[in-house]
Amino acid sequence: MGGTVKRMSLRPENAQQAGLLLLLRDGPRSRAELGDLGELSRSRLTLELGRLVELGLVESAGFAASRGGRRSGMVRLAEGLRFAGVDVGATSIDVAVTNGELEIIGHANEPCDVRRGPAYVLDRTLDLLGKLRDEGHYHRLQGAGIGVPGPVSFRDGRPVAPPIMPGWDRYPVRETIGQQLGCPAVVDNDVNIMALGELHAGLAKQVGDFLLVKIGTGVGCGIVVDGKVYRGVSGSAGDIGHIRVDDHGPVCACGNTGCLEAYFGGAALAREAQAVASRSPYLAERLAAAGSLTARDVAIAADKGDAAAARLIRDGGRRVGVVLAGLVSFFNPGLVIIAGGVARLGHVLLAEIRSVVYRRSLPLATGNLPIVLSELGETAGVIGAASLASDHVFSAS
Amino acid sequence: MGGTVKRMSLRPENAQQAGLLLLLRDGPRSRAELGDLGELSRSRLTLELGRLVELGLVESAGFAASRGGRRSGMVRLAEGLRFAGVDVGATSIDVAVTNGELEIIGHANEPCDVRRGPAYVLDRTLDLLGKLRDEGHYHRLQGAGIGVPGPVSFRDGRPVAPPIMPGWDRYPVRETIGQQLGCPAVVDNDVNIMALGELHAGLAKQVGDFLLVKIGTGVGCGIVVDGKVYRGVSGSAGDIGHIRVDDHGPVCACGNTGCLEAYFGGAALAREAQAVASRSPYLAERLAAAGSLTARDVAIAADKGDAAAARLIRDGGRRVGVVLAGLVSFFNPGLVIIAGGVARLGHVLLAEIRSVVYRRSLPLATGNLPIVLSELGETAGVIGAASLASDHVFSAS
Repeated sequence: MGGTVKRMSLRPENAQQAGLLLLLRDGPRSRAELGDLGELSRSRLTLELGRLVELGLVESAGFAASRGGRRSGMVRLAEGLRFAGVDVGATSIDVAVTNGELEIIGHANEPCDVRRGPAYVLDRTLDLLGKLRDEGHYHRLQGAGIGVPGPVSFRDGRPVAPPIMPGWDRYPVRETIGQQLGCPAVVDNDVNIMALGELHAGLAKQVGDFLLVKIGTGVGCGIVVDGKVYRGVSGSAGDIGHIRVDDHGPVCACGNTGCLEAYFGGAALAREAQAVASRSPYLAERLAAAGSLTARDVAIAADKGDAAAARLIRDGGRRVGVVLAGLVSFFNPGLVIIAGGVARLGHVLLAEIRSVVYRRSLPLATGNLPIVLSELGETAGVIGAASLASDHVFSAS
Repeated sequence: MGGTVKRMSLRPENAQQAGLLLLLRDGPRSRAELGDLGELSRSRLTLELGRLVELGLVESAGFAASRGGRRSGMVRLAEGLRFAGVDVGATSIDVAVTNGELEIIGHANEPCDVRRGPAYVLDRTLDLLGKLRDEGHYHRLQGAGIGVPGPVSFRDGRPVAPPIMPGWDRYPVRETIGQQLGCPAVVDNDVNIMALGELHAGLAKQVGDFLLVKIGTGVGCGIVVDGKVYRGVSGSAGDIGHIRVDDHGPVCACGNTGCLEAYFGGAALAREAQAVASRSPYLAERLAAAGSLTARDVAIAADKGDAAAARLIRDGGRRVGVVLAGLVSFFNPGLVIIAGGVARLGHVLLAEIRSVVYRRSLPLATGNLPIVLSELGETAGVIGAASLASDHVFSAS
């Protein structure tokens, strides 16, 4: 039991083995239960589990409580399995190492401007992972998943024309990380990996079709259909920051007018906070002290009862709500999760979004629709990235 | 060869047989080709095809041209297979009978107001199908698919709170049709069956992820993900007629203001045509003669060079374009098809929709995105409904 994993390249040999690994990702199970859930005969189950044990992917874990007859043996994913999850944000890098069950073993992060380019940012990423290795959190990785803040060609493992990532266009992120770590790597958009994190460890655990709206510096949406991320034909699905809110709105960085991101998100909120600071004692004081304002200042001001700050949050929530109402009518999801740094504006924001969506979407689409704040915080991205890596490694080759 | 089908209830016995039937739905194939495409050994293929012939679902069709060695035998779906496709619209019923390859054998339609209720409308539907039977187009049906103009619980085979279908809420459409025709029946939304029609016989044949926008009396959207209709958690996905175009727009039948349908669609266009008739000689003449105007009058006026009518079409196209631009950014489809009665407004409408979507959606999402008018016309719905029935019958029980 326990110990290290023996082989370099571990992949299940067929669809049955892949199915067993995915079942075990949720935790240890009895052989009886695995046979039922995997719809395998006892002899077939014994055969496939035996191969997974030989491959070093699965190990026995004592005996289950008796169901009447002979006690069923328990099995689990090998304790030594390790996956890396990396979440490259606009202004930070988060890395984590998980076990096979996607529980975080070690976690590290540091501020980092993605505009410093792929060579620098990936170097910092590998350094952070090296630190986790030196601390004994892993000896060898079975796979790595990386999320980046822009559109990604999932098939090629490269960013594609990412607007806030100069120098990253078509950079071979998957090859670079995979070669440096010596394991298979997978690259995706940061919002998609957050959605996967919610699916595996968050509020979306039992939900097949849901939306995750990330409000950070910009605004993006992860789309999950039948338990899988939907990426669209060029990998840009969920890019909702430039959906029009108003023809006569402010000019956006994209060149159009009235885009959602021109109104709301960390960048827009900081700008608007400066514009209203003269009417808010708290914001005026922060502006004088720091020289500029951030979305976090607006959140603190609103918490202290500042009316101008609360108004900014409500206005932003209303605009997110208007866009989301349309998407809810279109997509009819089972759950909407609001996440990202600006989501920490909290319940004032949530209340405004809910109010618009419940009023503007069709009753049939909102009848049983929860709209909630993420409870995972920063770990959603890294857990999702690790799950993406394990999805890849645990699929039959 | 040919002739009638012997058994009442025909279903493939396993996934391999189901896969072979779906391959044969595209037309006759050689045994060699089926073995390759179905990834079956020669002995397994012989076994499964033999069972399908015994079941009366498949028959031999001579020999293929030689590929060098022995000539491979051709097989095809039994010529006697028959599916019914029914498209119940707001103001008409279309029915068709197809063969197993979804080619239309017989077609009939009549005007019918869906508000007359399910008993009357389904009775008329069965009468039309009976007429096709009396004309010799079928003796017995293997399955029937029905589309209705409102939200449907696909699992239950019943409409759910359909706004323009009084009396239909929760009516057991599937049971009624299935019992009367003596075959399995499947019920879906009318826009979804049009999307399936495009997938099987129209412009979406090679496209996995696409949107079909139907502009008829109202406006709806069919969503296809990976070759399957996406229906959402309560079956209302694609219900885009009440997405907001403008906060200060006209009041919609749903109680909100500025919905897409309040601006555009057959109903809105007829109303607006009356409002501008004083500025259009053609529309004024039609109004005086007929007492009211329709979307078709607007189309004819625009064709004759009437500026007021062309303006109405362009304004409507712009609003559809604004909503569609957001959905294209969100969904990143491989194709958008514009269909439905109002789509016959033709290229003026299409040009306006394209112009807004290409300007407002993200370049990454529109780079390779064709936006086209449907070429199937009224047959999209009935072919899609028949394909839905055959999907059901050709899946392993």
